Amino acid sequence: MTTGNDQICFLSSKDFASASTTAVIASWKICPSSVTTDSLHIDSNFSSFFPNQGILERLNEGVVIGDGGFVFALEKRGYVKAGPWTPEAVIEYPEAVKQLHREFLRAGSDVMQCFTFYASEDKLENRGNKAAQHGVGAVNEAACKIAREVANEGDALIAGGMCQTPTYLSGGNKETVQIEFQKQADAFVKCGVDFLICEYFEHVEEATWAVEVCKKTGMAVAATLCINDEGDMHGVSTADCAVKLANAGADIIGINCHFDPDATLAGIREMKRGLDEAGLKRHLMSQPLAFKTPDVNKQGFIDLPEFPFALEPRILTRWDCHRYAREAYDLGVRYIGACCGFEPYHVRAIAEELSKERGCLPAASEKHDMWGGGLQLHTKPWVRARARRDYWENLSPASGRAESSAFSKPNAWGVTAGDDLLKQQKEATTLAEISNLAGRS
Amino acid sequence: MTTGNDQICFLSSKDFASASTTAVIASWKICPSSVTTDSLHIDSNFSSFFPNQGILERLNEGVVIGDGGFVFALEKRGYVKAGPWTPEAVIEYPEAVKQLHREFLRAGSDVMQCFTFYASEDKLENRGNKAAQHGVGAVNEAACKIAREVANEGDALIAGGMCQTPTYLSGGNKETVQIEFQKQADAFVKCGVDFLICEYFEHVEEATWAVEVCKKTGMAVAATLCINDEGDMHGVSTADCAVKLANAGADIIGINCHFDPDATLAGIREMKRGLDEAGLKRHLMSQPLAFKTPDVNKQGFIDLPEFPFALEPRILTRWDCHRYAREAYDLGVRYIGACCGFEPYHVRAIAEELSKERGCLPAASEKHDMWGGGLQLHTKPWVRARARRDYWENLSPASGRAESSAFSKPNAWGVTAGDDLLKQQKEATTLAEISNLAGRS
Amino acid sequence: MTTGNDQICFLSSKDFASASTTAVIASWKICPSSVTTDSLHIDSNFSSFFPNQGILERLNEGVVIGDGGFVFALEKRGYVKAGPWTPEAVIEYPEAVKQLHREFLRAGSDVMQCFTFYASEDKLENRGNKAAQHGVGAVNEAACKIAREVANEGDALIAGGMCQTPTYLSGGNKETVQIEFQKQADAFVKCGVDFLICEYFEHVEEATWAVEVCKKTGMAVAATLCINDEGDMHGVSTADCAVKLANAGADIIGINCHFDPDATLAGIREMKRGLDEAGLKRHLMSQPLAFKTPDVNKQGFIDLPEFPFALEPRILTRWDCHRYAREAYDLGVRYIGACCGFEPYHVRAIAEELSKERGCLPAASEKHDMWGGGLQLHTKPWVRARARRDYWENLSPASGRAESSAFSKPNAWGVTAGDDLLKQQKEATTLAEISNLAGRS
Amino acid sequence: MTTGNDQICFLSSKDFASASTTAVIASWKICPSSVTTDSLHIDSNFSSFFPNQGILERLNEGVVIGDGGFVFALEKRGYVKAGPWTPEAVIEYPEAVKQLHREFLRAGSDVMQCFTFYASEDKLENRGNKAAQHGVGAVNEAACKIAREVANEGDALIAGGMCQTPTYLSGGNKETVQIEFQKQADAFVKCGVDFLICEYFEHVEEATWAVEVCKKTGMAVAATLCINDEGDMHGVSTADCAVKLANAGADIIGINCHFDPDATLAGIREMKRGLDEAGLKRHLMSQPLAFKTPDVNKQGFIDLPEFPFALEPRILTRWDCHRYAREAYDLGVRYIGACCGFEPYHVRAIAEELSKERGCLPAASEKHDMWGGGLQLHTKPWVRARARRDYWENLSPASGRAESSAFSKPNAWGVTAGDDLLKQQKEATTLAEISNLAGRS
Repeated sequence: MTTGNDQICFLSSKDFASASTTAVIASWKICPSSVTTDSLHIDSNFSSFFPNQGILERLNEGVVIGDGGFVFALEKRGYVKAGPWTPEAVIEYPEAVKQLHREFLRAGSDVMQCFTFYASEDKLENRGNKAAQHGVGAVNEAACKIAREVANEGDALIAGGMCQTPTYLSGGNKETVQIEFQKQADAFVKCGVDFLICEYFEHVEEATWAVEVCKKTGMAVAATLCINDEGDMHGVSTADCAVKLANAGADIIGINCHFDPDATLAGIREMKRGLDEAGLKRHLMSQPLAFKTPDVNKQGFIDLPEFPFALEPRILTRWDCHRYAREAYDLGVRYIGACCGFEPYHVRAIAEELSKERGCLPAASEKHDMWGGGLQLHTKPWVRARARRDYWENLSPASGRAESSAFSKPNAWGVTAGDDLLKQQKEATTLAEISNLAGRS
Repeated sequence: MTTGNDQICFLSSKDFASASTTAVIASWKICPSSVTTDSLHIDSNFSSFFPNQGILERLNEGVVIGDGGFVFALEKRGYVKAGPWTPEAVIEYPEAVKQLHREFLRAGSDVMQCFTFYASEDKLENRGNKAAQHGVGAVNEAACKIAREVANEGDALIAGGMCQTPTYLSGGNKETVQIEFQKQADAFVKCGVDFLICEYFEHVEEATWAVEVCKKTGMAVAATLCINDEGDMHGVSTADCAVKLANAGADIIGINCHFDPDATLAGIREMKRGLDEAGLKRHLMSQPLAFKTPDVNKQGFIDLPEFPFALEPRILTRWDCHRYAREAYDLGVRYIGACCGFEPYHVRAIAEELSKERGCLPAASEKHDMWGGGLQLHTKPWVRARARRDYWENLSPASGRAESSAFSKPNAWGVTAGDDLLKQQKEATTLAEISNLAGRS
Repeated sequence: MTTGNDQICFLSSKDFASASTTAVIASWKICPSSVTTDSLHIDSNFSSFFPNQGILERLNEGVVIGDGGFVFALEKRGYVKAGPWTPEAVIEYPEAVKQLHREFLRAGSDVMQCFTFYASEDKLENRGNKAAQHGVGAVNEAACKIAREVANEGDALIAGGMCQTPTYLSGGNKETVQIEFQKQADAFVKCGVDFLICEYFEHVEEATWAVEVCKKTGMAVAATLCINDEGDMHGVSTADCAVKLANAGADIIGINCHFDPDATLAGIREMKRGLDEAGLKRHLMSQPLAFKTPDVNKQGFIDLPEFPFALEPRILTRWDCHRYAREAYDLGVRYIGACCGFEPYHVRAIAEELSKERGCLPAASEKHDMWGGGLQLHTKPWVRARARRDYWENLSPASGRAESSAFSKPNAWGVTAGDDLLKQQKEATTLAEISNLAGRS
Repeated sequence: MTTGNDQICFLSSKDFASASTTAVIASWKICPSSVTTDSLHIDSNFSSFFPNQGILERLNEGVVIGDGGFVFALEKRGYVKAGPWTPEAVIEYPEAVKQLHREFLRAGSDVMQCFTFYASEDKLENRGNKAAQHGVGAVNEAACKIAREVANEGDALIAGGMCQTPTYLSGGNKETVQIEFQKQADAFVKCGVDFLICEYFEHVEEATWAVEVCKKTGMAVAATLCINDEGDMHGVSTADCAVKLANAGADIIGINCHFDPDATLAGIREMKRGLDEAGLKRHLMSQPLAFKTPDVNKQGFIDLPEFPFALEPRILTRWDCHRYAREAYDLGVRYIGACCGFEPYHVRAIAEELSKERGCLPAASEKHDMWGGGLQLHTKPWVRARARRDYWENLSPASGRAESSAFSKPNAWGVTAGDDLLKQQKEATTLAEISNLAGRS
């Protein structure tokens, strides 16, 4: 099947011709994983064309780029509801989900995470959410099917994912919580994902319970907490968290969500220290927010007054993502991914920053050129003047918001797993409850 | 065909059940124009189901909601290159374009603008851009086909669009410029669009030339300049611009792009005054940026140092869009649309704000609930406390950027049509040219 | 008496020797008006040494520099109470008042305003203020005596001042209000001031009543309102205000207090237009705040939430004062003074900016050198690198306050003269009243 | 002598009568140390009236409040040159210096620091500074005389001070450096100060050399470095610095200048930890800047681009000083003072915050009332509404500067003692040198 190669040549010779003045791009080839186009028929055996190495082999050899944030991106597109944040769109609007996968693939993602975030049964049915009607197995399987279909358009792997549960937050014991994880794991085994990701855990205890369930599948397991360098919600230090995850069997360890790249990498630095001191060797993984969060406490961006509907001024620029990718790589992180807020162009920036290390550019760079090179084609001369790296690297972007501050005062209710206020509740929240909570904040 | 109606019922009774506590939503029906789902087979005769009134009839009866910004949204998704900003994606990646149309439809847009922005032949081939190879007719027709297909999934109209040309900026005369417009107009007539939009003109003179070409088609014509209340780039007052457009034959008059909602509405207020004083009655139309621009001069956001790759902190929140919609409506604007930066959720906010006036909610409100109502389903109690209108209306969002200012100092080179620096050039910009320009800024 | 000349030479040759590298300073002489030193015996006939031209003669010939803000400076030094803002310190702490006068003289002020602000009897006794016990005549005379003593140390004029009264705000009629003004005028005549200033009037009507009283003394009269370009509190346009003041007999017309230099000069531009259109020729006078107020409404800085105890981040730098002086001069203002917030170093900056026009530098420049030249003597090399004009002119100073915004939302109660809430009241405010008012804001 | 007591009664009964609604103030007496008025004859034996306890006795019994920043305050008044920052004003303009002392005394300062900052001979003659012509002994003695005169108007102590020398920065050895210190110490002994302060040392090594010289006088010695919690410029940890100072003989240990209250107290917390761990018991002393410096590195505010002529937006409000005083007290600091930027009203705020602990209010509170109580007398009702503690405590003041950021990027040249760029040089800096340095920054 030559489509892939043709596409590479096509992009190199024709579309990239416009970049003839930007020597840095001209000589690059397109990363095989990201070759896709919806205008071409893709052979279903495509995955056999590229030797489909497993995640650990890929990490041993070089950098793996993750994909971006599904719940935030699909919320903005109209397919996910902020609040429950559950992924029933995989059944209701599969084409929309598929399109987002395809954009991330094209942007350089080597892994398609099945859109199974919060797809545990106890979360699908919570406070009025009725997504559980689709069936926990059906939701997870539909997500896998979509991910595999797009992954095979390129050379990506797919990963089943699971995250923290209402059952644990409600004070459920290990057995009860693991039952929820097992339901998801069964679906992932059934549909044949390439590896598993346990992510978005605020309590390392629950994360190790998830890792245990996942390990039994025999697949490689990644585990990331949503913490910073101040430890988990129950006071376990970040360094110790990493050791606990490693001892539970995790092959890849790190942090996702809740913090911006700076705080995420600060946390991973602690994890690395913990693993080193314990003599443990694991791959490191970072999947931060695409929102600036210098002002949060250890609970993360949930506590920001702007969460989730006024985070716009905090959105990372593509240049912030360049810096993130470089700093993560320099720290030794090899699974460099992304979480809430990351749109396809943010992931492309990671892939462009690491193009030298990877030896290729993502397909979507066809429509970008490194460091703003595409501005060479702009009509206005003062915009053409911005087609250069130093311009963008040195810019501190204004907010256009004179009545806004740089930092917020985050909420800090300090409730953790087991607190009454966190207990699962199947009935919808009443207005009286909202009013009561509003009075507390 | 009952699919549409079923869908309405479905959304009202089941999905919106979660909003039982938000009384304001419970009783609303879904706007017919926005009914769509990619999981359903849509009959190709769908448009006959809803009585397809023309744009002027719709404006006479109530509010028409436009769609959002294609070049910026598709740039972030990886299908449009910033710099040329041309729409060859309609041929290269039609599914990606179609998906964006569908999201806007679902968000409440009553008009699908064919993605023909900058699709004049002289722009498709400029400074190294090779998009003209597809043929100007082919590009415009492909765009129309996609727009019609999605419009028919609901009850939307489609509009062919044209905008300012390199030929005019290079000092071309009326005849030369109108030749470029005629090529696009021919394509729009051929594929049967519902009406025409002349938009994004910095010089009212060129806009009137475009309107003249469009009027000859017999279709209704909208004309919007990208100016504020300080007049066009050649010093014609904003009020006079409106009168000139009306006299040239425009049925709908207003402003698009280059400025945020505040400045756009300030400009339209001047236009309204001009039309009133001249005794002319036309529909008003606003399609502002989704970026805060309090600090720009009359050249608009192009001059901001952040344009186009560091505008993130300026992105409007959905609550900013609520305010925009209300202020536009109160000013008498009835074509309330959007331009660069507007994503589907921004358009949904317009539709939600005007839901009372329109008597319906967009389909995508299934995944939102008015004023953050979906947060009633959030796990964390302090986030549930934010499920209320007054919380979001009173929030001034922090930027998370302590080294950034609120305002920038915009470039102000002051070159207008005819200036050497603006002349069209088919060859790619050289690095020496960039370096020379950088020294000037 | 050669002391003055010696001092000039002394400064030029010895102290300024350190500035040998800053050629711009070396050749300047010291302005005669500002020659003073507390280590020298000053002859009481000193004023005869310099030909004591009147204010109008001086304005006809060149620029006159006013002095700075007494109530704010003395509040910070511990001698004036914020709230009443009355000047009984002239009796209680004459040395402290004298020292401030001397600093302004040394900084370049050509006029010593007697510290008689708010020294009308109805203000000295209001809401618990007991300053009236000293007697309105005694307060005004003590102020004159101090001002004259310092003025005679150099070549400055002294001016008696009066401002808006509680009687007017309480709805008092012309006769009642003029009785208050007459008491102050009598004191000024008695102690022989050089001219009179009617200042800080929010309502032009009351200002003209004051001008009338002052004109009867036969002295030159300056009149300044505390308004911007939006007119007075009763809706009289700023241009019309100027005409009314001129017609009432004011020789010098302008704006003081309530707004920053930008807004003050915008208002004076309107006044100039009004006078020009009416064919009236008067000297223009500006005495703005030393606080940035881009966010206020027409009521001025009183409405800012930060007034009066948290205005620090808004304080002008000396470089802001340079710009103010230049812009005022270019607009044609020849009485370039200052109001609340202006400290001696701010006035020195005005005098330094206008040193070329005036042909001299103020005595206090001995301890400064133009444009930060003194930093040439700094130990740290990176601070020596800042001893240059372009460094300071291009700096936008950071606030060090990440939780603060650039703009505030000012109060806007909209009450004007005659409103019950503004009525004079001799009794102290009760806590219940405060609590009630707090509930309204 | 009853003047003092009368004054107390006077303030309590009459002036404070206006505060009858603010119960908190009514019952307080005036701190004896701050009783002064320039309108009263002060008996020269006044100091015998109040039992003049030494500094250590006072610290053992309660809180001692220091005075504010002389060089910055007198620079703004026109008597000190920024750059050399030397105190020859004590000879040239003694009345101006005396007035500032008197204001601090009145504001609540228990210690008058002789204005001998940078009064070492090698600093008085440096890079064109000619202040050494007065003689190092004469300068130090003149400063003592002024301080004693004002101290005796109340019940304050006076302290001789010395600080880091150009000789040390130039790489001078212990013997050479101590010669400079000895000259100052001799003057302090001669004129009879109450104790000595070694302050503003960036290198603990030099500070210990100063302490050794001072200890030989037999007087109590305070020693403060200008560092934060990251250690001194040569890498000695902050905790170790404290131990070294204690071992050298310092009785009172802490930090002054270079950092805001937050960073200063963070540093003192480290010092306290170091002393505790070493089993050493010393009094703690804090004298921070009155400028916000969250963005500096370990070199302090000298590195901020705004130093020293554009620091205005960073100036502390009086409410920031309240918080500082409370936090210092809670940390165990008992010498709570102030440095550059602190004006008399800032010191008054410290004294007001600690009025309960001290059992008295400073004399200057006559013109303030706690927590903005004086606003009860304001004419405008919405300002009267601000006469309450919670209003001011919760306000984040806006900067009025839309083009400014919250944080700056500090210079960081990283040169320390011994570096060529820091070497003393008697000749004036040339313009060529400035130009060369400007190119480096």
